[in-house]
Amino acid sequence: MLLTDLYQLTMLAAYFERGMEETAVFEFFVRRLPERRNFLVAAGLEQVVEYLEALRFTPAELEWLESTQLFAQRFLQRLEGLRFCGDVDALPEGTPFFANEPVLRVTAPLPQAQLVESRLINLLHFQTLVASKAARCVRVAGGRDLIDFGFRRAHGAEAGLLAARAAYLSGFTGTATVEAARRFGMPMFGTMAHSFVQAHAGEVAAFRHFVACFPSHNTLLIDTYDTARAAHKVVAFAASVRASGVGIQAVRIDSGDLDQESRAVRRILDEGGLGDTRIFASGSLDEYEIEKLVQAGAPVDSFGVGTHLDVSADAPYLDCAYKLQEYAGNPTRKRSSGKITLPGRKQLFRRYDERGQLLEDEIVIEGQDCGGSALIEPVMRLGKRLDSLQTLTQARERARDSLPRLPVRLQSIREHADYPVQVGPSVLALAEAVDRRVDRVD
Amino acid sequence: MLLTDLYQLTMLAAYFERGMEETAVFEFFVRRLPERRNFLVAAGLEQVVEYLEALRFTPAELEWLESTQLFAQRFLQRLEGLRFCGDVDALPEGTPFFANEPVLRVTAPLPQAQLVESRLINLLHFQTLVASKAARCVRVAGGRDLIDFGFRRAHGAEAGLLAARAAYLSGFTGTATVEAARRFGMPMFGTMAHSFVQAHAGEVAAFRHFVACFPSHNTLLIDTYDTARAAHKVVAFAASVRASGVGIQAVRIDSGDLDQESRAVRRILDEGGLGDTRIFASGSLDEYEIEKLVQAGAPVDSFGVGTHLDVSADAPYLDCAYKLQEYAGNPTRKRSSGKITLPGRKQLFRRYDERGQLLEDEIVIEGQDCGGSALIEPVMRLGKRLDSLQTLTQARERARDSLPRLPVRLQSIREHADYPVQVGPSVLALAEAVDRRVDRVD
Repeated sequence: MLLTDLYQLTMLAAYFERGMEETAVFEFFVRRLPERRNFLVAAGLEQVVEYLEALRFTPAELEWLESTQLFAQRFLQRLEGLRFCGDVDALPEGTPFFANEPVLRVTAPLPQAQLVESRLINLLHFQTLVASKAARCVRVAGGRDLIDFGFRRAHGAEAGLLAARAAYLSGFTGTATVEAARRFGMPMFGTMAHSFVQAHAGEVAAFRHFVACFPSHNTLLIDTYDTARAAHKVVAFAASVRASGVGIQAVRIDSGDLDQESRAVRRILDEGGLGDTRIFASGSLDEYEIEKLVQAGAPVDSFGVGTHLDVSADAPYLDCAYKLQEYAGNPTRKRSSGKITLPGRKQLFRRYDERGQLLEDEIVIEGQDCGGSALIEPVMRLGKRLDSLQTLTQARERARDSLPRLPVRLQSIREHADYPVQVGPSVLALAEAVDRRVDRVD
Repeated sequence: MLLTDLYQLTMLAAYFERGMEETAVFEFFVRRLPERRNFLVAAGLEQVVEYLEALRFTPAELEWLESTQLFAQRFLQRLEGLRFCGDVDALPEGTPFFANEPVLRVTAPLPQAQLVESRLINLLHFQTLVASKAARCVRVAGGRDLIDFGFRRAHGAEAGLLAARAAYLSGFTGTATVEAARRFGMPMFGTMAHSFVQAHAGEVAAFRHFVACFPSHNTLLIDTYDTARAAHKVVAFAASVRASGVGIQAVRIDSGDLDQESRAVRRILDEGGLGDTRIFASGSLDEYEIEKLVQAGAPVDSFGVGTHLDVSADAPYLDCAYKLQEYAGNPTRKRSSGKITLPGRKQLFRRYDERGQLLEDEIVIEGQDCGGSALIEPVMRLGKRLDSLQTLTQARERARDSLPRLPVRLQSIREHADYPVQVGPSVLALAEAVDRRVDRVD
């Protein structure tokens, strides 16, 4: 619970001191999309719900806060009893969305709604970032398997786990990370490392040993010394064990020109009677490289996507915020240069054309109906999750259904394209009213 | 302990099956530096040591592994008893280093040394990434305070905490993240959010309320509506409470042209008798923006650096690896295209000029002395940390001492510059011998 910024605690101390505990409404949104993103995919909601349900300060945390001598005893007592008992409404995970659209709304007594800001952004921001990157990989992979390989270069352990989840949500086949498979019930995949080959006297010894241990699922790494030579060794080795019913499921290439290497290896395998042995490619892959390989017709069956996915390398952060929209019944907004927000509790409507393709979105004040589908749904009431909260599998189905319905121009991974998002007249009128009220004060 | 790639477990199963448990030597290094980095700062070692000391599979993890039906019972029994009982040698945290230099060496029975690869890279990679980014910020800040503000946009919770640690190691003054302050014993800092201002009827009410609660440490956020107007309000408010001995420590500006805004605010504060009130700037800052502000002479006393620091935005990953250098007394290396490694247990020597500036480095086979200071030091023996392991404070002192001794050309944050790293003849001769041996097999 100390996964928060110090200012949340000092503000809370002030709120409690003055009894400012009326209902506050905060909304999370992304101010603008990175240059290379035409849409984002909502992700991270399940972890936000888990966080809010479990929110409490431990005795050890309170003791440490006391030792800092920054806070009064009566404040620490208030923290001791603090739980999240508010409401959450949000876009379901797997929903594509755009700049300035409300993604998640917290309605709770001001101290609760304020305190959770830091971790809530931390959770929504990262999974949305990776789910959006992963959707681009899925878009260009043309149905080939994509496996998350990124744990080692993800930013810490939690990033590695949540990146695996977010990628799976957007259509990846699975992950190499064992703990992610365990925690989220995802398929896991593994091959072998160069060190395995190097630890043996030669490649054939390594292959023979591995296949003896894993006769029914084995992927042999063939680029440790010379890829084409190793492919020939695989063919010879496979011939020597064919009589015993053992087969080679796949080979992996992790370096070099993957287009040329995969063609050469495919040819060697096919000529050696290994037409069923699949080719797995990895090594600095991202959506740009995958698109090139697929368009060139490289005979790759599965891609391992690591670093570039897990850190969203071409757009490693989103300009997102969690802002106060209403307090004690009064709508509010900030007008800081370049960071103006829209006040009030908002709903997002989406309209489709006759083929089910996304046509346009409209942001309105909640309670209004401007036509189309209302996308913000109830998630928590009085601090408890609703039964309707999607599972990861359902979120993955939603993404699989929604992403192909984006306008084709948005689906390019290289060309920038905008999507029409209207700010409804009710929101604009409320913004003007808020400004008039604030300008009368002070 | 399941924070690992599946292939580590399958390889371990094969190693145990065949009794391949002789001593392996792995080294961690960075293959090449990102375009915008002239040096890196070693960080993350303390977390690696903690991980290795605590390494064990829990009963729940073993039970889950069994449920996957991928592994034999006798393998799971071996995992149950697995501990790390090897040696670690490494560059002390806070040491600047360059491409291809050994940073950390693990010497342990092959299964142990192999298993830890994924998490060890995960820990060293990220803190080194952020420490290196932070060192650039420190370089251009000219002694002004730098505070880590990045938790919310860090990639998950652990990233937020470790980024705070890495930034402090490289010379940041502290962090806004409470848990990081608690866990690592770092100073923490906080101001107030826009929502605090918005939740009050007006800015003056918000300022008055906050100062009443925190009379001796308060930073007022003044850009919610109109920065210059708010600065005038601070002056008037300060005058109204001066008699009671209350002062305004600082104001924070979080948007707009920070150079112009800080000058305007400084003028207003000075003319209003608030010459001692400091100016705190934040909002999309990185080393490039800080350098511009400092060179322009903007009157900013402290910088809050968030997103760009915690995700290392201009270089969000390093091309790093942990590779087998020796097994059972035999040196090894891979020769994959673009990813060739140097075999053997290596030491790094650094030579300095007469003023103590770094002159050149040389990589040699361990046990040789080529002149200069040997930088790789013992860290763990037989699975236990040595008393000589640096504290965070000592690592910070090392960085503070070492970074200014880098050649001036390397200290530019904009111009690329290379540093001379020699690969000693002993290493080259060993590489040739390894290649000859491997090419004779198969």
